[in-house]
Amino acid sequence: MRLSRYFLPVAKESPADAQIVSHKLMLRAGLIRQTAAGIYAWLPLGLRVLRKIEQIVREEQDRAGAVELLMPTLQSADLWRESGRYDAYGPEMLRIRDRHEREMLYGPTNEEMITAIFRDSVRSYRDLPRTLYHIQWKFRDEVRPRFGVMRGREFLMKDAYSFDLDEAGARLSYYTQLLAYLRTFQRLGVKAVPMKAASGPIGGDLSHEFIVLAPTGESEVFYDSDFDQFDWQQSELDYGNEADLKRLFDQVSGMYAATDETHEPARWDAVPEMRRRQGRGIEVGHIFFFGTKYSAAMGMSVQGPDGQPVVPQMGSYGIGVSRLMGAIIEASHDANGIIWPEAVAPYKVGLINMRADDAKCAAAADDLYAKLNAAGVETLYDDRDERGGAKFATMDLIGLPWQIVIGPKGLERGVVELKNRASGEKVELSIDDALARLAG
Amino acid sequence: MRLSRYFLPVAKESPADAQIVSHKLMLRAGLIRQTAAGIYAWLPLGLRVLRKIEQIVREEQDRAGAVELLMPTLQSADLWRESGRYDAYGPEMLRIRDRHEREMLYGPTNEEMITAIFRDSVRSYRDLPRTLYHIQWKFRDEVRPRFGVMRGREFLMKDAYSFDLDEAGARLSYYTQLLAYLRTFQRLGVKAVPMKAASGPIGGDLSHEFIVLAPTGESEVFYDSDFDQFDWQQSELDYGNEADLKRLFDQVSGMYAATDETHEPARWDAVPEMRRRQGRGIEVGHIFFFGTKYSAAMGMSVQGPDGQPVVPQMGSYGIGVSRLMGAIIEASHDANGIIWPEAVAPYKVGLINMRADDAKCAAAADDLYAKLNAAGVETLYDDRDERGGAKFATMDLIGLPWQIVIGPKGLERGVVELKNRASGEKVELSIDDALARLAG
Repeated sequence: MRLSRYFLPVAKESPADAQIVSHKLMLRAGLIRQTAAGIYAWLPLGLRVLRKIEQIVREEQDRAGAVELLMPTLQSADLWRESGRYDAYGPEMLRIRDRHEREMLYGPTNEEMITAIFRDSVRSYRDLPRTLYHIQWKFRDEVRPRFGVMRGREFLMKDAYSFDLDEAGARLSYYTQLLAYLRTFQRLGVKAVPMKAASGPIGGDLSHEFIVLAPTGESEVFYDSDFDQFDWQQSELDYGNEADLKRLFDQVSGMYAATDETHEPARWDAVPEMRRRQGRGIEVGHIFFFGTKYSAAMGMSVQGPDGQPVVPQMGSYGIGVSRLMGAIIEASHDANGIIWPEAVAPYKVGLINMRADDAKCAAAADDLYAKLNAAGVETLYDDRDERGGAKFATMDLIGLPWQIVIGPKGLERGVVELKNRASGEKVELSIDDALARLAG
Repeated sequence: MRLSRYFLPVAKESPADAQIVSHKLMLRAGLIRQTAAGIYAWLPLGLRVLRKIEQIVREEQDRAGAVELLMPTLQSADLWRESGRYDAYGPEMLRIRDRHEREMLYGPTNEEMITAIFRDSVRSYRDLPRTLYHIQWKFRDEVRPRFGVMRGREFLMKDAYSFDLDEAGARLSYYTQLLAYLRTFQRLGVKAVPMKAASGPIGGDLSHEFIVLAPTGESEVFYDSDFDQFDWQQSELDYGNEADLKRLFDQVSGMYAATDETHEPARWDAVPEMRRRQGRGIEVGHIFFFGTKYSAAMGMSVQGPDGQPVVPQMGSYGIGVSRLMGAIIEASHDANGIIWPEAVAPYKVGLINMRADDAKCAAAADDLYAKLNAAGVETLYDDRDERGGAKFATMDLIGLPWQIVIGPKGLERGVVELKNRASGEKVELSIDDALARLAG
C-alpha cells in the first residue's frame, strides 16, 4: 500500500483522557478513533491487525474441531427469559425496544441463542459432541468505559459453545478449548496464563481465566513461572486423543496460577520462591463448564443411544479479540511506539523513500515496492513528499517489524538500509539482498 | 469438512411463512436460522457463502483503490444531529438509550460517521481524493420484514464514501465505484443492471441503483438488453485513467435502464422492441453523488493548494452483501435445490461415500478426501452412516458445484461418479482422473 493513497492519521500527542500506553499508542498510530464513549472505529491500519488476530483465533478453533457460524448482534428478550437471565443480568445489558415495542437487547454473550439454535436443529446423540463458535461484535454497557479497546463497550469476541452427551465428554471439550487457547495466545505473541477462576454470572463449577500480566490489569494474579517454559505449539497434541488432552490439562493444572478471587495462600507458599510471579493482570479469555444450566432451563434434549432423552452438558469459551490488540501493545512497545509481533503486524515491511523528489530514489523505491508485492511481502510504502525525520518517526510509531530506507547516498553505493524495529539493528545491503531477506 | 463433525441442519419442508424460493431454500439447506423477526443466524454453510461474497466485494473495492476500515454498529444521536438527519430519519432507525440515558442508534448507514472521522483527521488537499469503505452489520427496523435475508432488519452492507476536492473529481470517484460494482456483480455470477435512480433520503443529484431481475422485486424495471452483452472483467479499465472511466461510464449511461421512478416512456419507445427487457427487480446496490450535503453541514474543510478552505465533494456507495445471497439463489436454483456459482459456493465438491459401513468404500473415500484437501480443493465429505438417497438429496439441496459418489460397485471397476450440479451431467472415471479434474 502506498501511503500517498492510504488513510493513516497519526498524531504527535495523544488525548489527555488516554491513561494507558496501549490506548495512547493506538490513537497516536492511527489504529482507532473514538466515536462515542467506549465505542471505536477501526482505522485501516488497526483493522488489519484486528483481522490478523481474528484469523489466528479462527485457525486454532478450526484446528481444534470447532465449527464456525455467525449469530446476529441483536437478540430477543424472550430468549433470555427462557434461561431466566433477562431479569438477572445487570445494567451492562443494553436493552432496546423496536418500533413495535418488542423488547430486544444487544448480545453481551450468546449462551441462550446457541442453545436455542442447537435445540431446534438436533435430535439424536449422533449429532454430538459438537463445539460451535462465532466471532461477532458484542456490547456491554460498562458504567465507566476506559483504557481504549481494553474496556470498551462495543467489542469483538470469539465465543464457542460445546455440547456433549455426558460430563466426561464435556470435560474433554473443555480441555480441548483450553489447549487451543494456549496455542492461540502463543501464536499471537502474548503470554496468557490460565488461572483457576470463579465462574460468575455464567454459572458452573469449572472455569479458567486467561490473564496477561499488565500493570493496568483489573485483578491481582499469582502464578508459577514454570508455566513460562511451555511451548504449546510444539507439544504433542492430537485433539482426538483423550490421553493427550488429559495429560496436557493435568500439566497446566499442576502449576499454581490464581487470581485474587481464587488465591490459596497455603498452596502458594509451597511454590519455590524464585518461581513465584505476582502482579496485575488483564483477562483476555475466559472458559466455563456449566453442565446443564442452559440446556435444562431451555428444554433441550436429544435421543440417547438407548432411546431415552439426554440433556446435553455444555461449556462456553470466550476470547476478547479486540481487547487482545491492546494487550499485545501493552506487552510490546518502546518509547518510540508499537513493536508488532510479526504474526499480527499490519504490514511486514515499511519502505521509506527518503527523497520523493529525487527521480532515482523514486524509481528504485517503486521498483522494490513492486518486487516486494510480487513476492507476497506485505509492504507499506511511504512514497509521500515529506521530511525523512517525520517518515522515520511514523514508521517507528506504527511498529512494522522491518523498515527499508532508500536514500540518494546509499543508492550511489548500491545499498539500502534495513532496520529491525524490535532490536533497532540496522544493516546496509544491496536491494536484491534486502528483497531476499524479507521474502524468505 | 466431514459431515459427521459438521453442523448442517437441513430440512425437508420449509416453514409456511417463507414466501420466496431463496428464503425457503436458505432455511431448508441449513444456511440460516431465524432468531427474531427479520434477524438471522448464519449457520456454518451459509456463513461460508457470506464470507465468499464479502471477499469478492472487498477485492474489487481494493482494486478500485478504496481503503477499508471498520466503523462500529452503534452511533451517537448527536452525530446525526449535526447533519439534521436524526429527526428526519423515520421509524426504520432503531433508536437506543444507554444506561446513562444517552441517545444512540444502530447505524442504518454511515455518512455522518465517516464525515466526522475524515473531518477530524485530514487537513490538506494533499490527502484527497480518498474513498473509504467498510463491511459491517447495519440495522433498519423494517415495519414488516420478509423474504428472509432479502428484506431483513439486521443485514451486512458494504458502504464506501468518497471525498474529492471538486465535482469533476467526485464524478470520477463515482464512475470508479460504478465500474467496480459491475465487475463485482459479474464475478458473483449475478446480473445486476445499473439504473438511473432517484436519490431519496441520502440526497444528491446523481444516483444509480443496481437491480437484479426477480419476480419478487420491489420495483418495476426497464432496460436495454444490450447491457447483457458487456463483459466488465475483460473490459480495458485502468482506474487511474480518466479517459477509461469516462468512456465506460458513457457506455453504461448510453443504454436505457430505469426503474418505475425514473422511467421515461419517450426514451423507452426509442429502444428497439426486441431489446426491451421489463420486469420486477431487487436492489442489490445503490450509489449516490451528493456534493457537499454532509461535508458542509458538518463543517468539514481542508486547506486547498492556494491556502483557501475547500469543502470536499462526497459520494456514497452501498452493496447489500447479505441480500446478495438471496439474489444469487433466486437466479440460480432448480426443483432439487440451490445451484451455487463456483465463485461463492461454500465448498467446491461434495464427496459422498455411499456405504459408510463398507471398509473398502470408507478407505477409498477417506483417501480421496485427504487428497482433495491436500490439493486445496474445498470439500464437504458426507461420511455419515445414512442412506444413499438421503445423501444425494442433501447434496442437491445445498448445491455444491461438483459431487463425487463412491460406491462398492464402482470401486470394483475402479471408478467413481462425478456429477456436475448445474448441468446434471454424470461421468464415471478413475479416482485419479476425478482428482485431476477437480484440482485443475
